[in-house]
Amino acid sequence: MIEDLKNKVLNANLELVRRGLVLFTWGNVSAIDRLTGCVVIKPSGVPYETMAAGDMVVTDLDGKVIDGRLKPSSDLPTHLVLYNTFPNIGGVVHTHSTYATAWAQAGRSIPNLGTTHSDYFKEHILCTRMMTSREIEGGRYEHETGRVIVECFDAMNPDSTPGVLVNNHGPFAWGKDADNAVHNAAVMEEVAKIAYLTMQINPQSRMNEPLTRYHYERKHGAKAYYGQEKEQES
Amino acid sequence: MIEDLKNKVLNANLELVRRGLVLFTWGNVSAIDRLTGCVVIKPSGVPYETMAAGDMVVTDLDGKVIDGRLKPSSDLPTHLVLYNTFPNIGGVVHTHSTYATAWAQAGRSIPNLGTTHSDYFKEHILCTRMMTSREIEGGRYEHETGRVIVECFDAMNPDSTPGVLVNNHGPFAWGKDADNAVHNAAVMEEVAKIAYLTMQINPQSRMNEPLTRYHYERKHGAKAYYGQEKEQES
Amino acid sequence: MIEDLKNKVLNANLELVRRGLVLFTWGNVSAIDRLTGCVVIKPSGVPYETMAAGDMVVTDLDGKVIDGRLKPSSDLPTHLVLYNTFPNIGGVVHTHSTYATAWAQAGRSIPNLGTTHSDYFKEHILCTRMMTSREIEGGRYEHETGRVIVECFDAMNPDSTPGVLVNNHGPFAWGKDADNAVHNAAVMEEVAKIAYLTMQINPQSRMNEPLTRYHYERKHGAKAYYGQEKEQES
Amino acid sequence: MIEDLKNKVLNANLELVRRGLVLFTWGNVSAIDRLTGCVVIKPSGVPYETMAAGDMVVTDLDGKVIDGRLKPSSDLPTHLVLYNTFPNIGGVVHTHSTYATAWAQAGRSIPNLGTTHSDYFKEHILCTRMMTSREIEGGRYEHETGRVIVECFDAMNPDSTPGVLVNNHGPFAWGKDADNAVHNAAVMEEVAKIAYLTMQINPQSRMNEPLTRYHYERKHGAKAYYGQEKEQES
Repeated sequence: MIEDLKNKVLNANLELVRRGLVLFTWGNVSAIDRLTGCVVIKPSGVPYETMAAGDMVVTDLDGKVIDGRLKPSSDLPTHLVLYNTFPNIGGVVHTHSTYATAWAQAGRSIPNLGTTHSDYFKEHILCTRMMTSREIEGGRYEHETGRVIVECFDAMNPDSTPGVLVNNHGPFAWGKDADNAVHNAAVMEEVAKIAYLTMQINPQSRMNEPLTRYHYERKHGAKAYYGQEKEQES
Repeated sequence: MIEDLKNKVLNANLELVRRGLVLFTWGNVSAIDRLTGCVVIKPSGVPYETMAAGDMVVTDLDGKVIDGRLKPSSDLPTHLVLYNTFPNIGGVVHTHSTYATAWAQAGRSIPNLGTTHSDYFKEHILCTRMMTSREIEGGRYEHETGRVIVECFDAMNPDSTPGVLVNNHGPFAWGKDADNAVHNAAVMEEVAKIAYLTMQINPQSRMNEPLTRYHYERKHGAKAYYGQEKEQES
Repeated sequence: MIEDLKNKVLNANLELVRRGLVLFTWGNVSAIDRLTGCVVIKPSGVPYETMAAGDMVVTDLDGKVIDGRLKPSSDLPTHLVLYNTFPNIGGVVHTHSTYATAWAQAGRSIPNLGTTHSDYFKEHILCTRMMTSREIEGGRYEHETGRVIVECFDAMNPDSTPGVLVNNHGPFAWGKDADNAVHNAAVMEEVAKIAYLTMQINPQSRMNEPLTRYHYERKHGAKAYYGQEKEQES
Repeated sequence: MIEDLKNKVLNANLELVRRGLVLFTWGNVSAIDRLTGCVVIKPSGVPYETMAAGDMVVTDLDGKVIDGRLKPSSDLPTHLVLYNTFPNIGGVVHTHSTYATAWAQAGRSIPNLGTTHSDYFKEHILCTRMMTSREIEGGRYEHETGRVIVECFDAMNPDSTPGVLVNNHGPFAWGKDADNAVHNAAVMEEVAKIAYLTMQINPQSRMNEPLTRYHYERKHGAKAYYGQEKEQES
């Protein structure tokens, strides 16, 4: 079971490379087994080219290492806050993908400007507030990063808008499992690029509200009719 | 005959992937056999990697499924409006290709700024008006999408400008068959990119009218002299 | 001899594809044998995938076909004006490469803003004036295109600035042979992209004049010291 | 020993091509053996496709050729100034990579706008002042290029900000060895691209100062905790 999850997490990490979402070691994927509370995550700073399933690190929901020879990704505490707060998610991804990172550096949310966005993300993809010195230097930086993310979802459902931008940093995405989280990270990068171009063409661009709602419901609502009977994510 | 058309539609869908015009399942190609009125279209939400000719769905011009185990693309009703209104077209393509989608999200037509555009599209590539709540939520959304497209061609020939942008959504293109429709979709994406860059360099850019006319006629007019005697599209 | 030139012209045309400078059939390369005055050029509208050396067309400097089963590229008369006017050039290329075409559509010359440009092009890469209706519709459109190009070199040396933008159309480049012309076309596309980005970052960007001069001379001048003793273009 | 360094320098040069950082021969990598003071550098103007380890040129710290049949890269004197002034560096890279070159042509430093930048470069990546006619034309142009670079580090540590932009020209990067220098050159190109996009989205973008400091220290400081115990660069 846990070996299976290690393989899935390894493959999801490699999919980041294949999709052009990471340069060098700039990304990480984790997944959780909700029955046992075990989290599997990529090790810190290990090149993707030589990474094996056995290099994956297993921790509990408090970050205690259960299995694995290597140190877990330094972003693990951020992932744990998300797993502990968002009960339905099964996988988390962090990247520095180019266009999403540019929006994050600009301190701007990615506006929902069209059906490509609303097919996957019901609302704007929010950018967190800037973190305070206290949060950054208080000894729990990565944990606090998770907390500013969670703030954004006080009045928003993380299942229908499965991603966020961390201010001055970059994107996090999640999903029902590791593969789905990577899928959402790839979509976020593409909608970030299209939104960038859209605003360059016409800074007054805006979404057609009913169209947004309709497209999200067409694919994810109670009466969804996109895809085959057993709907698959992709 | 219909098996042959299924193969052509499958290959045209795969060509979208090879040309970088689709991410995941974000696109669809159909074709029509004008003699029998049979329309062949990609199934909904099936990954391109595993798609086979036998997965294609055959319907009549009212959308009734004649052949196929899977549900047709949810955009089928839009394709049908186009086949029913534009008598000369044999294939239709819908994508969310990056630059064309940005123009659509910006609510702006792609201006005809040079010979690259006018070699294929005689006029600007129009962006439809925003759809109304009634059109979106009235139960025939995809059909209404076709109708706002058709509005753009009240005073324009769909054969000499074989594409359009649906506002807040993305591009549709068409042609004499499925391959030709994909060809036009690829050209539209490239002219969308070049027009984007052109307007960034010089927002006052404009076309030389006689040059536009001349280039279109050089390739498509009664005295066309581009290509070999039996002119082929590409 | 002529067979050898056909192979070189074929390979130079295929290099356009490998370098990402053409989509579909949107480009052409020719070369001249100055001893015999024979010009070899790509046929019109033939896909690159299936093109063979035997498809190349041979003409004299007036455009009369000497050898070949197919029609020459419709841009042949433009190439001929260049060969007839610029005595030192041995190859000519025309493309619709993305960034160079954007500058051409914007009606703007590519400014010489750095050493990347001045290593290859001593001056700005000029954009021609708009062509008149008379020039376009007078029956010798491609010949007149050559003539507006030549106008740009009334006071400029085509050997030290081996390329130009045709207004509302796209780039032409040339060189001592077909390979060198393609090399210059690839450089022009890259300097067009960098100049685009430069002007977006800082619209007041300008070249350091002595640096421009120095870099061109370092590579091409009487006391050039770039490359090995027998300097090669690349 | 020196043969080993030649191989490393060759491979680092080829890595520039694989990473898309150079077109044609527009780049060079060198490395130094600090024990003997031997510098190994790419030859001038030789195509990457056919380059072999035996083509590398070995010089001393004054530029005198010790070993090698070919002329060294014309930028050698710039590399030597850097080796002579920055005692901890072991490799130097020069490219004309697209986005970094655009910032250099714009005469603007790359602002440190996010953690992607500060994970590798502690400060802004400075753009040198314009060089004077005297510096350019005085017979030691490449040496003077090194000197204007060094000026930027009067009050800045070259080890914690391992790169610079030469005004109107392009980027130089360095590192503990040739591989590390290429790694830093690749990072600089990516942060140049993200910074470009960031400023287009929001011209008022700015870094969160404590976050910058923290991220640099997390990876490079005395209490660094990124990566495995034996931290590796990538």
